[in-house]
Formats: sequence, structure tokens, C-alpha cells
Amino acid sequence: MRASRFPLFTSKETPADAEIVSHQLMLRAGMIEKLGAGLYTWQPLGLRVMRRVEQVVREEMDAIGGLEVLMPAVQPAELWQESGRWSQYGPELLRLKDRHERDFCIGPTHEEVITDYLRRELRSYRQLPLTYYQIQTKFRDEIRPRFGVMRAREFVMKDAYSFHMDEASLQQTYDDMRAAYARIFTRLGLEFRPVGADTGAIGGSVSEEFMVLADSGEDEIAICERCDYAANTELAASRPPLPEREPALSAEEKPTPGIQTVAEQAEVLGIRPEQVVKSVVVMADEVPAVLFVAGDDELNLVKAGHALGAGEVRLAEPEEALEATGVPRGFIGPKGLPQGLTVLVDERAAGLANFSSGAGRADWHWVNLNWDRDMPLPPVADLRTVRAGEGCPRCEGRLAIRRGIEVGHIFQLGTKYSEAMDARVLDENGEQLPLRMGCYGIGVSRVVAAAIEQNHDAHGIVWPEPLAPFRVALVSLNAHKSEAVADAAARLYDELTAAGLEPFWDDRPARPGVKFADMELIGLPHRLVVGERGVAAGTVEYRGRRDSESRDVPVAEVVDFLRRQEA
Amino acid sequence: MRASRFPLFTSKETPADAEIVSHQLMLRAGMIEKLGAGLYTWQPLGLRVMRRVEQVVREEMDAIGGLEVLMPAVQPAELWQESGRWSQYGPELLRLKDRHERDFCIGPTHEEVITDYLRRELRSYRQLPLTYYQIQTKFRDEIRPRFGVMRAREFVMKDAYSFHMDEASLQQTYDDMRAAYARIFTRLGLEFRPVGADTGAIGGSVSEEFMVLADSGEDEIAICERCDYAANTELAASRPPLPEREPALSAEEKPTPGIQTVAEQAEVLGIRPEQVVKSVVVMADEVPAVLFVAGDDELNLVKAGHALGAGEVRLAEPEEALEATGVPRGFIGPKGLPQGLTVLVDERAAGLANFSSGAGRADWHWVNLNWDRDMPLPPVADLRTVRAGEGCPRCEGRLAIRRGIEVGHIFQLGTKYSEAMDARVLDENGEQLPLRMGCYGIGVSRVVAAAIEQNHDAHGIVWPEPLAPFRVALVSLNAHKSEAVADAAARLYDELTAAGLEPFWDDRPARPGVKFADMELIGLPHRLVVGERGVAAGTVEYRGRRDSESRDVPVAEVVDFLRRQEA
Repeated sequence: MRASRFPLFTSKETPADAEIVSHQLMLRAGMIEKLGAGLYTWQPLGLRVMRRVEQVVREEMDAIGGLEVLMPAVQPAELWQESGRWSQYGPELLRLKDRHERDFCIGPTHEEVITDYLRRELRSYRQLPLTYYQIQTKFRDEIRPRFGVMRAREFVMKDAYSFHMDEASLQQTYDDMRAAYARIFTRLGLEFRPVGADTGAIGGSVSEEFMVLADSGEDEIAICERCDYAANTELAASRPPLPEREPALSAEEKPTPGIQTVAEQAEVLGIRPEQVVKSVVVMADEVPAVLFVAGDDELNLVKAGHALGAGEVRLAEPEEALEATGVPRGFIGPKGLPQGLTVLVDERAAGLANFSSGAGRADWHWVNLNWDRDMPLPPVADLRTVRAGEGCPRCEGRLAIRRGIEVGHIFQLGTKYSEAMDARVLDENGEQLPLRMGCYGIGVSRVVAAAIEQNHDAHGIVWPEPLAPFRVALVSLNAHKSEAVADAAARLYDELTAAGLEPFWDDRPARPGVKFADMELIGLPHRLVVGERGVAAGTVEYRGRRDSESRDVPVAEVVDFLRRQEA
Repeated sequence: MRASRFPLFTSKETPADAEIVSHQLMLRAGMIEKLGAGLYTWQPLGLRVMRRVEQVVREEMDAIGGLEVLMPAVQPAELWQESGRWSQYGPELLRLKDRHERDFCIGPTHEEVITDYLRRELRSYRQLPLTYYQIQTKFRDEIRPRFGVMRAREFVMKDAYSFHMDEASLQQTYDDMRAAYARIFTRLGLEFRPVGADTGAIGGSVSEEFMVLADSGEDEIAICERCDYAANTELAASRPPLPEREPALSAEEKPTPGIQTVAEQAEVLGIRPEQVVKSVVVMADEVPAVLFVAGDDELNLVKAGHALGAGEVRLAEPEEALEATGVPRGFIGPKGLPQGLTVLVDERAAGLANFSSGAGRADWHWVNLNWDRDMPLPPVADLRTVRAGEGCPRCEGRLAIRRGIEVGHIFQLGTKYSEAMDARVLDENGEQLPLRMGCYGIGVSRVVAAAIEQNHDAHGIVWPEPLAPFRVALVSLNAHKSEAVADAAARLYDELTAAGLEPFWDDRPARPGVKFADMELIGLPHRLVVGERGVAAGTVEYRGRRDSESRDVPVAEVVDFLRRQEA
């Protein structure tokens, strides 16, 4: 392709309302154009990248037996009422009425439609398992769309749904899908991790998120430096450093007037924060509970929810805490709590000896408390958020904390939709069984932005080879003034095209600096410069997008040279 | 692909609400599934066909320099208000409000979005001409969706838009696009015609429709049997048979009490209908006019609108006709009409001599009237609908009347949108000129249905080779009982796959009749049957989808044989 037939519409200025680098660079490179809040036109340059993602996704879905379909974007309300999601879903669901005043929505996902399809068409359990997928434009009416295509209202998604007679078959397809996702992100040249994820309200089912690692990611994840363990810090476990065993000392009450924080407590009592057991009152589905964690640890509310078997857990307001315990804030402790109040202790806090905690009355704390001796050890659970450097729960490695961008999510749904929508099939014993179901998403348009978050520098995008919109930038210098340069560039362009190297020839009559800056901004992996000096010498100047130096390559060897660079 | 991994979901029963054969066959073959009124899921079999259409369209758009984009389906109302279409468009435009109560629509076309894009990004006339296209799901809220995907509410369309500095450039791209469309429908194996079309309210601009010929088509078109002239009968011209010259006879008034029709008039007066000039009163933008056409011709209201320069022309109600002419219905004629009333005569009626017409008073008709002698000849225009067998207006050939399905429409829009939206660019003289624009659509999903309307028989679909979802049906007979058959079929399947012949192996343990019926229903071009007799003889039974007989082909020669069939 040539710039004269494929205008770049690049810009030097960073758009004022673009907060993250991928949004800035996609706008500046002319990959996308904003039409309205969370609505973007994919310009030719951007669409070429998205199509590369789509193609890899399609090939890998086909490879595991996925059957491609295309479901309507506009869906009748009746199906959503059947599944219950019409009332459960918030205002992100864009609802509308047709000219006959019937209710519809623009589907953010298609569980209802595909389940309805299968319940009508499926004739025998022998036709299972089946996996359907589509690559489609979706809509979510985000209250505050931001970050460009990273959290747009209209976006492109690959959604897949699998159907099964039993859990073993579901697990098999889930495993196949997990492997396919790993191949997809590997083929796209991205650094990523599959990460155990919270299954939220659905509970009990299996779910993993695929995270592209990038410092700007919204999710924090713990990754083992040795094995493939990775988990959202909401869920991650670790082998925390355990305190050394020490002989029990005599417990003692000390006056601590007015102190509120662990830091104040440690200072007044002359101890370290990790010698404190702090008491946190939470409301678990609006029922109070007291949780004990080490003074230097952070209570993890997601883990607390799992441990308490609660759907929603939040910190209690001061009045709620006072009402539940009868003790003012800052002085609650494991001794002297009301009967019947739920209490749990974190694993690490449970291992402490001679610790300090609130005395259960205002302005006093205990020191040198010991579980069992001074009060019974409450039930133990993992309640703390892991920290970098702690031991991996699976191997002898250590955990690092990284940030990631969620680009995929795979999920074992079980019979949630098939029960609600009565999607059953006769098994071999003549029994009507609800279908087991999995669902599997990839944010196709988001992958493009995530790839940029992971791969950029001060000059622009640095595309991984498989994602680049064009593979070679061919820059001709002052070709409008030199026929020899124009001819040499044209010959090289034809040669690169014939070799399948997908060149982008910047044939504009612009200054060299403008061209170089644009080619760096749009991030093509390889750059060839054709100028008068090189034409005379029979060479062309090469520079890889990540290189700091250029080098001359004989024109006759350029194609072979580039093929070696790609390998 | 194998039936065991790609369930067909075929049906023998014709769905009750499917009126046309393509709708019936697409449902029966399991290509589509109805979700709601005018909403269809494309099942894997149907989507494979649609993807073939998309691929050919994409290649031909790229070949003429089209740049692919993807614009948002959901569009802000503001842009439509700017172009004026927000108020002009009827209830087919699906309007909606987002969670912040802002107005949007789901765009049925994208002139506003692309014009807005260009007015913001275009920097110089040197960047023109530019052609953008997208292949996208559109929505039109049809009041009565019917005919399956032929007139669905949600459908897939290729829409393209071109931008130019002058008319010559627009004409060049229009011609390129016209040629690309012809290549697309030729490559898809369809019989089609580009047809001059009415430009409707936009008037004056150039427009052509691409019609797939099929007896069930909604449009009637006149086609020259010799040259490439083709036009919608709303517009088609012809060289009609002219009456022989005859000497003028004496005009005479005759009593014709109570007659109303041309047939009655001819019978009572003992003349032929083509000796009658009938007078038709129309309302042209609510102003009356009288139009004269030969008694055996049909007045064409579209042509009348063009001749009268009116936007909307309809037949006058009897009271309107009486008020305009003062003459009761059946007795209006060219003599004795009120002064100032607009009158036009059709070319053929203008050539008649010694004709009969109403006398301008109840119960009387003239015979042997002659223009100029008895009354002045009114302005002459082409006002009649052509008939089969008439001469082509361009060559010595004759016209046939065929029916067609509109699958494409190309249009020179001029400055309609750029003027309204102030999309201008500096020309080389420093003058701000509005962009010239063309738009070009293909109903991608509709092409699939139109292809079936043109290519089917009593047993099912008969795909043109380039559209077939799979190319070869491989039917193994009782393979679950015969290992030799199963092995032979598996070997052949692998061989066909490796040869790129895209086989569909019906490996179900079903009766041969069921398999044959399904393969005919889904319309694969070639069928190979592997059975015990053939395995013993080293042959396989071949039958083309249009063949009436099968024949045996040696297994070793099958691939070469199939390649010859396709050529």
C-alpha cells in the first residue's frame, strides 16, 4: 500500500481527553476516530490490526471444532425475561422499543439467543458436545466510557458458547478453549497470563481471565516467577512468611488513650506492626462479623466473602461496628466479644504469638496475647491480600505483583441458563437433562489497545510482528525530486509486495523527518529508507522499530534480510 | 467437515410463514433460524455462504482502491439533524435513547458519519479521490418484515462512499464501482443486470441498480436481447410499433351512453383499442394534469413524474378529475378542456391518426380525430410502460421483460450531504469547495437469498459453485456396519480435503435416502457416494447437483475428475 492511496491522518498533538497511552496513540496514529462518547470509527489503519486479531481468533476457534454463527444484535426482551437477566441487568443494557412498541435490547452477550437456538434444534445427546462462536459488534451502555476502545460502548467481541451432557465434557471443552486462548495470545506476540478469577455471584463455577501484562493495567495480579501460577490479587494465595516460634509471655492490659491505628498502637506500645492482630468488622450480606488479620496485612474482602459464604461483603460503618461489638472503634479485640458474633482469623494472624490487640474497652489494649491460652482460636481462613516476594502456593518460587488488562474470560456456566430456559435433551437412558454450558469471551477490539499498552515507546507504537497493520515501512527520500530514487523505491516496493512482506510505501512529497516520525508513530516493525546515497551505492538503509541504529543492506539482499529479521 | 461435528438441523416441512422459496429453503436447510420478526441467526451453514459473498466483495472493493473501515452502528442524533435526515426518515429508522437520555439511531446507512469523518480529517484536495467501504450489520425497522433475510430488519450490507473534488472524478469512481459490481456478481456465478433506476426525490443524479434475475423478483425490468440495455420498467424506454400512416377521415361525434372503459368504447364504436386515445387525469404534486396515451398502453406514473417535473404523481380521484376538467369520467378528451390545464401526450399516442376519444361531454365520443387538424398537438413525452417484444431504444434488438431482485445500488450523490454538513476542502486555487460524493451498496445477506431464488429445484438449493458452503458432498452408505466403507470414505475425505475441494462428509448413521435428501436440500454442487459395491470395484459414484444420472468414477481419478467438473 502507498501513503498516496491510503492517507494516514496522523497527528502530533496528544488529544486532551485521552488518559491512557493506547488511546492517545490510536488517535494520533489515525487508527480510530471518535464519533461520540464511547463510539469510535475504526479507520483503515486500525481496522487492519483488528482484522489480524479476528483472523487468529477464528483460526483457533475453528481448530478446536468451534462453529461460527452470527446472531442478531437486537434481541427480543422475552428471552431476557425468561433467563431473568432483563431485571437483573443494570442500565448498561441498552433497551429500546421498535415501531410497534415492543421491547428489545442490544445484546452485550448472547447466552439467551444461543440457548434458545439449541433447545429448538437439538434432537439428541449424540449431537453434543457443540461449540458455537461469533465475532460481532456488541454494545454496553457504560455510564462513563473512557480509555478509547479499551472501555468503549460499542466494541467487537468474540463470544463462544459450548453445550454438554455432563461436567466431564464441559471440562474437556473448557480445557480446549483455555489452550486455544493461550495459542491465540502467543500467536499475537503478547505477554499474557491466564489468571484464576472470582466467579462473583454465580459462585462455585470455574472461571479464568486472560490478562495482557502492562503497567497501566487496571487489574493487579500475582504471578509466580517459577511456575505458571497466576491469580488476580483478589484471589491469589501465597505461603506468607511465618513468624518465628517464641515462648509465651504474660498477657497484660496497657492504657492506650485515644489511639486509632495500628501504627499508633505499635508506637505507643513499643512493638512492630506485625506483632499486632487487628480486628476488622465487616457486614456480610448485612450481617456483622469480626475478622482478625496481622497488623501489617491487608484484609481481602473477596476472600472474606468466600470464607463467610456471603454474596456481598463490605467494611462496617463505625456505628454498625459499635452496635455489633459494644466496643468503640480502635479497641475491638478477640477477647470479650459478644456471644454468637461470627469471628474468623486469617492463617498468618493465627500463627502469631505474644501479639497485641484491642482490650474490648475504650483506651486499653492487650499485649502478649496468645491464641488458645487467652481465648479460643477462631476458625482459620485465608483472609489477606498477598504481597510481592511471598512464596508461590504451588511451588518453591516467589510471587511477583504485576498489572494486567483483561482481554479474555472463560467460564463454566453449568446449568444456569438451561434450567431457567428449560433447555433439555434426552440422555441415553431417556431422561430429560438440562444442558451444561460454558461461555468464552475475547475482547477483540480491546486486544488492539492492550497490545499498545504493552508495546510502545516515546515515539509511538511498537507493534509485535503479527499485529502490525503493515510489516515494512518503505520511505523514499525526495523521490519527487530524484527520478533515480523514485525508480529504486518503486522497484523495491514491487519486490517486497511480491514477497508477501506487506510494505507501506510512504511516497508523500514530505520532509524526511515527517515521514520518519509518522512511521515510528504507527509502529511498523521494519523500516527501509531509499535515498540518493544508497541508490548510488546499491544499498538501502534498514532499521528495526526497536533498534537504536540503522545499517545498510545491499538492495539485492533486502528480501532475504527481512525474512531473517522476522524469524 | 463432517456431519458428526457440524450438525445440519435440516427439516422436511415447509415452514408455514415462509412465502418465498429462498426463505423456505434457507429455513429447511438450517441456514438461518428465526429469533423474532425480521431477526435471524445465521447458522454455520448459512454463514459459510455469506462469508463467501463478503470475501468476493472485499477483494473487489480493495482492487479498485477502496479502504475498509468500520463505523459505529449506533449514531448520535446530532449528525442526522445536521443532514436533515433525522426528520425526513420515517419510522424505519430505529431511534433510541442512551442511559443519559441522549438521542441515537441505529444507522441504516452511514453518509453522515463518513462525511463527518472526512470534514474533520481531510487536509488537502491532493488526498482525493478517496473511497471507503465497510461490511456491517444494519438495521431498518420494516413495518412488515417478510421473505426471510430478503427483507429482514437486521441485515448485512456493504456500504461504500467516495469523495471527490469534481464531477469527472466522481464519474470515474462510479464507473470503477460499476465494473467492480459486475465482477462481483459474475464471480459469484449469478445471472444479473445493472439497470437504470429512478433517482426518486434526489432527482437528476445518476443511479443504477444491480438486479439478480429471478421469476420471483419484486422488480420488473426490460432487457434487450441483443445489447446490454436494461432498465426498470418504471423507466425503460423502447421503440414502440408505430401505427401505419393513413389518410385523414372526417371527424364525427357518436353517442356512447354510459360507457366507462376503453374496451367498451372500442366495442360500441366498432374500432380496435389501439385506435383510442385515452385521457388520464393525474395529480402532480396535488396539481391536476391530463395525460393522453394510446388505448392499449399503460400510463407510467414514474415517467409522468419526470415529464411533469413533479415529485409525486398519482391518479386523480373521480371528484378531482371532474373538478379539473368539468367532464364526467369516461368522456374526457383532448377537445374542449379548460384553458390553463396542463396536458401532455405520449409519443405513441401522438403518432395516431383517425383516433377516438371522449367528446368532453357525458355520453358522447369522437371518432376519426386527428392532431393539429382537430386540436393542437400537446407537448409530447414518453409516458407509457414498455412491453415485451418492443424494439430496444439503443440497438435493433427487441426487449424482453424479466423480473429481478435488487442486490446492489450505486449512486452519484453530488453535494447533497457535503453542502448540508459543510464538508469542504480547499482546491488548488484556494477556494473552499463542497466535496462531491457517491454511495454504493450491496445487500450482502440478501445476495444469499437472491442466489437461491435464481438457483433451486424441487429438491432444494442448487448452489452456483462459488457460493456453495461446501463443494463436495461425500456420502458413506452404512459405514457404521462396514469397516471397508468407513475406511474408504475416510481416505477419500482426507484426499479431498488435502486437494482443497472442501468436502462435507455425511458420516451420520442414517438411511441413504435421508442423506441423499439432505445433500440435495443444502445444494452442494457435487456428490460422491461410497458404498460396498463401489469399494469392491474401486469406484465411487458421482452425481452433479444438476445431473439426472449418476456415474462411476475410479477412486484414483476422483480428484482430477472433480477439478474438471468445476472448470
